[in-house]
Amino acid sequence: MKYEEFFRHCLDLKKTFLCVGVDPDPEQLPAHFPRTSEGVYQFCKNLIDVTHDLSLAYKFNLAFFEIWGAPGWQILGRLLAELPPDVMTIGDAKRGDIGNSSRFYVQALFDTMGFNAATVSPYLGSESYAPFCASENHGAFVLCVTSNPSSLEIQEHGQPPLYLKVAEKVQEMNRLRNLGLVMGATKPEQLTEIRQRFPSLPFLIPGIGKQGGTAALALEVCRACGTGLINVSRSISFPETGKFPENIREATQKYSQQFQI
Amino acid sequence: MKYEEFFRHCLDLKKTFLCVGVDPDPEQLPAHFPRTSEGVYQFCKNLIDVTHDLSLAYKFNLAFFEIWGAPGWQILGRLLAELPPDVMTIGDAKRGDIGNSSRFYVQALFDTMGFNAATVSPYLGSESYAPFCASENHGAFVLCVTSNPSSLEIQEHGQPPLYLKVAEKVQEMNRLRNLGLVMGATKPEQLTEIRQRFPSLPFLIPGIGKQGGTAALALEVCRACGTGLINVSRSISFPETGKFPENIREATQKYSQQFQI
Repeated sequence: MKYEEFFRHCLDLKKTFLCVGVDPDPEQLPAHFPRTSEGVYQFCKNLIDVTHDLSLAYKFNLAFFEIWGAPGWQILGRLLAELPPDVMTIGDAKRGDIGNSSRFYVQALFDTMGFNAATVSPYLGSESYAPFCASENHGAFVLCVTSNPSSLEIQEHGQPPLYLKVAEKVQEMNRLRNLGLVMGATKPEQLTEIRQRFPSLPFLIPGIGKQGGTAALALEVCRACGTGLINVSRSISFPETGKFPENIREATQKYSQQFQI
Repeated sequence: MKYEEFFRHCLDLKKTFLCVGVDPDPEQLPAHFPRTSEGVYQFCKNLIDVTHDLSLAYKFNLAFFEIWGAPGWQILGRLLAELPPDVMTIGDAKRGDIGNSSRFYVQALFDTMGFNAATVSPYLGSESYAPFCASENHGAFVLCVTSNPSSLEIQEHGQPPLYLKVAEKVQEMNRLRNLGLVMGATKPEQLTEIRQRFPSLPFLIPGIGKQGGTAALALEVCRACGTGLINVSRSISFPETGKFPENIREATQKYSQQFQI
């Protein structure tokens, strides 16, 4: 199935924009999981078991797997292979290299690992993400306005600001309708502006929950174009109260409901 | 040993700015190496055997290892563990994420894998690379002006151009003297400008050889500050003529000599 159709299929089935961020910080796992790659695998398995019927997608942050070296990539591969079929997967890798190297990152993330989409960084220009949108079977979300405090140091540079230039180029490159933008929920002004200017580009929106972004606006900009992903990581994986894994299930129910399409 | 001292130690010992880029494209390996992760390991082992006495550093491009999934990280770990001690290692990973995630990339690349330094992308602002320069035992090269054709699309945006802003911020963040800039040899104007404005920041210079960058200028800007790395990947690993591995040795001798400190 083409990426765009699969995205639509999952949205129609799940009826929520909720994307669960898988960022398994070993220090934050419930106490009974060993602080090993196998412990992380077991935790993620449990997380997926109690969330997949309520989630549109999983965004796996590769940093939290790479801390284990090869065993981290091994458990990531197992998790992806064992996922239920009706959920999108995003490799949150923020890759971006010269064209020749980016083609190999595409092979790694899409062919070897089996992600449906990936996050990519635009600093090297459109050539660095062109290989990620070259096939209609996969997609990419290009970093535009990120959710971290120092993001606008670079992204707001120039007049018009850089993030606008990035969005324009992504729009232009989106011939196969498999590109979108990473737009942090912590930057409401830019979120509104970019939605107005690019009404049909899907957003992947991080920054909800512990990062403090506004959920209402995230939902509004997704509903405005009928597609998108609102990511929640720590507030689902590591709720501050309750008993594991029921507390994860409860948090997911809350967000899944809140982010109904 | 502190990163800066180790860099100096290797420079004094090897007396060359040559950094060998390890980009093991399986399609380009000599015919007798199997197109498997083990074949790639054997090729890289041979490459290192015949180049390490002539090289200041190795820059491993992670894309070419990640195509194999977990086995790629496994052979990368083996290669790093088996390297001779008097050579620097750079994880050419171009990572860059929100601060919390970047700390995990640091753990992956420096603690788990054992790289001395890494390449990082500045698109998320200085927060994304701050964890990479937080310890004086490791260093980072921040993408500034890259060697690919579409690089200036983003990097020249604004007035002053974005690349200048990136360099200024890196200079400001360089309190432990463990930061440098990635400056492509294919952009002579910017290479000269940034060297003049930031006379003490080490450059990691890709783009020599098959990418067409000027070797003479790369050498000049390294000599001007007495430090730096000039990277050659494909022209050393995959010479167009000669018999393996003697042809690799010959190409390395040529570049090692050419890039004498």
